[in-house]
Amino acid sequence: MSQATRRRFLGTIGALGVAAAGGGLLSACGSGDDDDAALAQASTPTSAPTEAPEEDQETDKHDAGSTAEAGDGESVEEMDAMHEAGILAFPAATEGLGGQPLEYEMDGDVKVFKLTCQVVPEWEYSPGKYAEAWTYNRVTPGPEIRVTEGDTVRIEVTNELHESTAVHWHGLMVPNNMDGVPFITQPPIKPGETFVYEFPIREGNVGSHMYHSHHNSAEQVTKGMLGAFIVEPKDPSTRPAFDSEFTMILNDGPIGAFTINGKGFPATQPIVARLGEKVLVRYMNEGLMIHPMHLHGMPMTVIAQDGYLLPQPYMCDTLNIAPGQRFEAIIEATELGVWAFHCHILSHAETRHGMFGMVTAMIVEE
Amino acid sequence: MSQATRRRFLGTIGALGVAAAGGGLLSACGSGDDDDAALAQASTPTSAPTEAPEEDQETDKHDAGSTAEAGDGESVEEMDAMHEAGILAFPAATEGLGGQPLEYEMDGDVKVFKLTCQVVPEWEYSPGKYAEAWTYNRVTPGPEIRVTEGDTVRIEVTNELHESTAVHWHGLMVPNNMDGVPFITQPPIKPGETFVYEFPIREGNVGSHMYHSHHNSAEQVTKGMLGAFIVEPKDPSTRPAFDSEFTMILNDGPIGAFTINGKGFPATQPIVARLGEKVLVRYMNEGLMIHPMHLHGMPMTVIAQDGYLLPQPYMCDTLNIAPGQRFEAIIEATELGVWAFHCHILSHAETRHGMFGMVTAMIVEE
Amino acid sequence: MSQATRRRFLGTIGALGVAAAGGGLLSACGSGDDDDAALAQASTPTSAPTEAPEEDQETDKHDAGSTAEAGDGESVEEMDAMHEAGILAFPAATEGLGGQPLEYEMDGDVKVFKLTCQVVPEWEYSPGKYAEAWTYNRVTPGPEIRVTEGDTVRIEVTNELHESTAVHWHGLMVPNNMDGVPFITQPPIKPGETFVYEFPIREGNVGSHMYHSHHNSAEQVTKGMLGAFIVEPKDPSTRPAFDSEFTMILNDGPIGAFTINGKGFPATQPIVARLGEKVLVRYMNEGLMIHPMHLHGMPMTVIAQDGYLLPQPYMCDTLNIAPGQRFEAIIEATELGVWAFHCHILSHAETRHGMFGMVTAMIVEE
Repeated sequence: MSQATRRRFLGTIGALGVAAAGGGLLSACGSGDDDDAALAQASTPTSAPTEAPEEDQETDKHDAGSTAEAGDGESVEEMDAMHEAGILAFPAATEGLGGQPLEYEMDGDVKVFKLTCQVVPEWEYSPGKYAEAWTYNRVTPGPEIRVTEGDTVRIEVTNELHESTAVHWHGLMVPNNMDGVPFITQPPIKPGETFVYEFPIREGNVGSHMYHSHHNSAEQVTKGMLGAFIVEPKDPSTRPAFDSEFTMILNDGPIGAFTINGKGFPATQPIVARLGEKVLVRYMNEGLMIHPMHLHGMPMTVIAQDGYLLPQPYMCDTLNIAPGQRFEAIIEATELGVWAFHCHILSHAETRHGMFGMVTAMIVEE
Repeated sequence: MSQATRRRFLGTIGALGVAAAGGGLLSACGSGDDDDAALAQASTPTSAPTEAPEEDQETDKHDAGSTAEAGDGESVEEMDAMHEAGILAFPAATEGLGGQPLEYEMDGDVKVFKLTCQVVPEWEYSPGKYAEAWTYNRVTPGPEIRVTEGDTVRIEVTNELHESTAVHWHGLMVPNNMDGVPFITQPPIKPGETFVYEFPIREGNVGSHMYHSHHNSAEQVTKGMLGAFIVEPKDPSTRPAFDSEFTMILNDGPIGAFTINGKGFPATQPIVARLGEKVLVRYMNEGLMIHPMHLHGMPMTVIAQDGYLLPQPYMCDTLNIAPGQRFEAIIEATELGVWAFHCHILSHAETRHGMFGMVTAMIVEE
Repeated sequence: MSQATRRRFLGTIGALGVAAAGGGLLSACGSGDDDDAALAQASTPTSAPTEAPEEDQETDKHDAGSTAEAGDGESVEEMDAMHEAGILAFPAATEGLGGQPLEYEMDGDVKVFKLTCQVVPEWEYSPGKYAEAWTYNRVTPGPEIRVTEGDTVRIEVTNELHESTAVHWHGLMVPNNMDGVPFITQPPIKPGETFVYEFPIREGNVGSHMYHSHHNSAEQVTKGMLGAFIVEPKDPSTRPAFDSEFTMILNDGPIGAFTINGKGFPATQPIVARLGEKVLVRYMNEGLMIHPMHLHGMPMTVIAQDGYLLPQPYMCDTLNIAPGQRFEAIIEATELGVWAFHCHILSHAETRHGMFGMVTAMIVEE
């Protein structure tokens, strides 16, 4: 699926003439736009020769000897090539993928899940870039736990770290002794031990929740010990309808600093939708900073906060998610093309050498 | 009351078997849960012997010689003991308590309050930890001013600092010359001087407001010159009903860096409620950073922002409060037990050595 | 207008007796308040002799030899004089003013705008303070583009920088190949080149939007390559009514660190309104940090987010704007006087030496 998506992405941007090596300005313009007569004459660039702009001749703040050189040593062409390489690599294959559904077994009426806390010495958060991750089941985010209102769940947590841990079910209404706070609701789970959590999924406690460490949490969570805990409604008609969904877990810890679902651009996964489909995005912030996520091209309608339906959904194109918060928003895929989707703290998304970190794309196809 | 609360807290967590010295994993599990048959078999841990997890034998990133040692030198037991000590100390007695009601005298129809700006060289923000605080009446937060819609108030502010100051009534609609901005609405109050503020409390200007310095404010406020200014409605039926209330003033200045009502965990005060009660929490951010406050176990309903009732209250479990903002939320105490309540920027709440800073608990009793 | 506003501002604060050189505490108090008998006796200060407050004699943390000296070397009088000088200078004239309406020419039915990307080596962001700005048309913010729902616009962007660029129309629903993301929707605009954007302004895409660089954006935008893109409704009755408006673009990049419309206090522009008027404020955050903007004296009603009308407007006095977000709020100018209006991250607004950065004022006149 990753390779299919990748081919699709390259096909789409190739149609615009921008991703082809050597695609020039003229070839890029005027294409990819065939549904609006008013735009027929758009994009008629004047490719003037590259001259030294006047005001820069008046100052020596740029020590570039020629206008073909950008400020930090590399030439304009070199700088642009680095930007292009990042885009062409997207979505890049990396080792390890978190957030996939966690299988369970039934024990009578109880859904039984198993999580093992493990260090992964080299988590590939971006192509060729590695950091130590602390994980559930060797991936970050940990596997997705998905259940239904009214279920009873049991989660067996085994600690293979070098230090104690405990798991908090963030957003779930559980009996106090299942809440996962060492020395307040349970003893810490020491290395080598297993602790068994079991609780019913309460009526109305539907939506996008999370699980994460609640012991030495500033370190354990940001290093990767976190995951989505999604509760589906018994009666889907109690929530707004959608055609597909995408969970977007934000983290800004030591693993690559800025990640979506454990990966930084270009190793992030795009959202792919057919024209007219409604995509539910489940935003979850497990980091230490806010991340205002901006979608290009079309707005989103925010329908729920921390799992609770908003009495009045509202529209926006930039949604600010603070640590611990979850939002559910529906994007109606009304606009064809590849649309950037990124944190608008621009330093979390781009450097002089191209996009990185909290960047993905929404691809809308016919 | 602090000692009573403390005994109550220890009793509650003692019932869970987790706070008793030497409370082991097995003793902790399966207790404290007697109202749900589905959970009868929960928490049956397998206390396997502590073995070196496989993946850690493959890497030398941990220089721990044995699996019983955590990363930064101390052993697992030492690290956990530090975590436990923090919990057992909560709520810890410290010298000085801010935010208590400020007495007033009547002068005709006018309620007369007195504030003195004073440096407290050693404010105990956490047990045995001291920082210089700049205060009103020798405490931070300053004493709570609480009046009623329609009152007229006079506040005599005497400056005993080494520098000028002035007081801004944040959120109150006052005549311009009472607004507290030096050189715009009044001269600064120089050391040794007294300035008298007097203004009516306007109809509709109800809710959770603040007072704080507006001169050299980035320093004076974060050092502690701030307090709650609460306006009660003449007719309580104009606001949602509640059984008790708790004001939570957040600060992140030099006094202990991260404090709730001038104290860091374990010196913070818990919220105590009986089962079924409604608690109004008045969040106020007087710091320089956002603080998304997360309550475990049950949601809150946000009813007012900056004192103004929301047209449509909404529910959440993590409320992001930015500097200068106030929110009022009602928590229905439906869940028994001790529930962590903390800033979800985890580095404001926990270190490798345990919880600190912006952490408190909500204790729900029968 | 700036000089007229400045005279008006000085006149207003002069009436309060606070801005006149040598205006003392007694002369300042009791004036400027003639509409409330209850306040007749307010502000009767006791100007006690400046004495060393007791608690400071007990500590040597202040190395000030006399109480007339503030902590960092300067005396109280020197420190206050620096604060006063900032206020007296407001609104200060500086060279260059961004955000003014951009003229266009008609080409048939198409409104044609021209933007040139240029470095301004010395942008005066505050009186006598300069930083290198990267600009559109030599100002930051770039000139305001203002059109009407249903228009077709063409924007010719010429790059005179030393590196490539591209323009993203943040909040506008444009055809994919007009979206301004190099290598995804177009080739970068290299130095010396011109790229022509053309797109229709879609029905319903009304409100406060932005344009900014989307190439090396963390650097290009924070250095100044940003501007307002405002879409007026065809039928003004579809939006709440107002008498005047003010666009407030926030940035926290290298240009003076904290700016409103490209200038730091005292070079920021005040909002001036007559008593009873409704002012629409268009907040736009183009920086890398949140900025909770606090208006003294009266609340605002938030009516739109990212251009979309809120289903239920809400009131507040401190509005948190995250990077990439826009909000529209209406302030009813019900309170006479000069009211501070500033970011409530106090370190973005004031130092020991007075106000700077993200501070302006709302002046309400009869």
